[in-house]
Amino acid sequence: MVKYLSQSEAINVDQELFNDYKFSVDQLMELAGLSCAHAISKCFPTDKYGRVLICCGPGNNGGDGLVCARHLALMGYTPTIYYPKPTAKPLYENLSHQCKLMEICRVEDCPAINEAASNFDLIVDALFGFSFKPPVRAEFVAIVELMQQTTLPIASVDIPSGWDVEKGKVNDSDLEPDLLISLTAPKICARNFKGRYHYLGGRFVPPALQRKYDLNLPTYPGNELCLKL
Amino acid sequence: MVKYLSQSEAINVDQELFNDYKFSVDQLMELAGLSCAHAISKCFPTDKYGRVLICCGPGNNGGDGLVCARHLALMGYTPTIYYPKPTAKPLYENLSHQCKLMEICRVEDCPAINEAASNFDLIVDALFGFSFKPPVRAEFVAIVELMQQTTLPIASVDIPSGWDVEKGKVNDSDLEPDLLISLTAPKICARNFKGRYHYLGGRFVPPALQRKYDLNLPTYPGNELCLKL
Repeated sequence: MVKYLSQSEAINVDQELFNDYKFSVDQLMELAGLSCAHAISKCFPTDKYGRVLICCGPGNNGGDGLVCARHLALMGYTPTIYYPKPTAKPLYENLSHQCKLMEICRVEDCPAINEAASNFDLIVDALFGFSFKPPVRAEFVAIVELMQQTTLPIASVDIPSGWDVEKGKVNDSDLEPDLLISLTAPKICARNFKGRYHYLGGRFVPPALQRKYDLNLPTYPGNELCLKL
Repeated sequence: MVKYLSQSEAINVDQELFNDYKFSVDQLMELAGLSCAHAISKCFPTDKYGRVLICCGPGNNGGDGLVCARHLALMGYTPTIYYPKPTAKPLYENLSHQCKLMEICRVEDCPAINEAASNFDLIVDALFGFSFKPPVRAEFVAIVELMQQTTLPIASVDIPSGWDVEKGKVNDSDLEPDLLISLTAPKICARNFKGRYHYLGGRFVPPALQRKYDLNLPTYPGNELCLKL
């Protein structure tokens, strides 16, 4: 049985990948975002779900979203980015720049619910990751509310935004994604996930680190970058 | 018809990816090395070709090899790295360190031909890339000769090592890989490739850059990271 990580375990695994294994954020974010794009393509094929609104937060979860947007574009989707609080670090500025030069649109204002329903087929929730602690900050209230109220399918990257990383849904109104892509290993909140598709992505965890944390990850088939849990 | 790049075109495309599109080497090397591992897994399945000697040169081609080694290990292969002239830059040191902590073996001496035949099922040639100009430097003569003489199958990353990037084979004795993985776009020498499998990898070229250089890349199917040319 695959292990579900607490918030502190998730933070420790992440720190070891960077500090001990000497991965760069660029490397792992590229692999994580790519695996999200692959999981999305398996659940929401481009012919029916081509128009994708990708909501990016201010941290690594948002960076995964920017990478995911670029790979979805290369795979024939038409992503649109909503990135209300761009991070002023070179990596994030470069990821945004790459999306811009990939001709990926960006909206400056949070779409209204009926506008989202007409213009998009799918929403990718890349707002908050495993280091999230409530409450949701002011800049993100509108987009979180949109995701709570929309009837569009939602794919959440690692953590459904607004959920407690361990307790799961905090309020009945919290969003319920259709796809959850757990990165590296699922977090405890994923036990409460009731959507259609739960995928594991981020196929980069070294075996020694898997053993150290008893992750007990399932075997990815062949060369797949993600697997259905 | 896909375009075959001259040496200077290949260098220019590469420079634009880094300077204009602001990709980091970490990002694109991760995607390139991963696509090589995918092409290898399609042509040389792990049950028959599990023991892989990966020969890494001093530049980006060697870096692709280090990334490829790590992903092959995650996919169930048993790679062994031969890296006679490690590059003293943080990226390369970190890629080597990741391989070491992934428990990937490294040999210090170039294996003799019979030793290679007993210990390995496949050789990955990640010695020299599109900026190579002859002659082969002293440190790499033994491994290039091994690849010329071995009967093991060889997978070359981007350029068969020792080949002229435009003219192809320089001497009759030059190595003949079974698999050539052209990265980004094929180089002119690939027209002379007579091996069994020619793949395209490096699915990251932005459409505007494809248009600027008339690359006319074929469409990658679905979410595949490489395709057979």
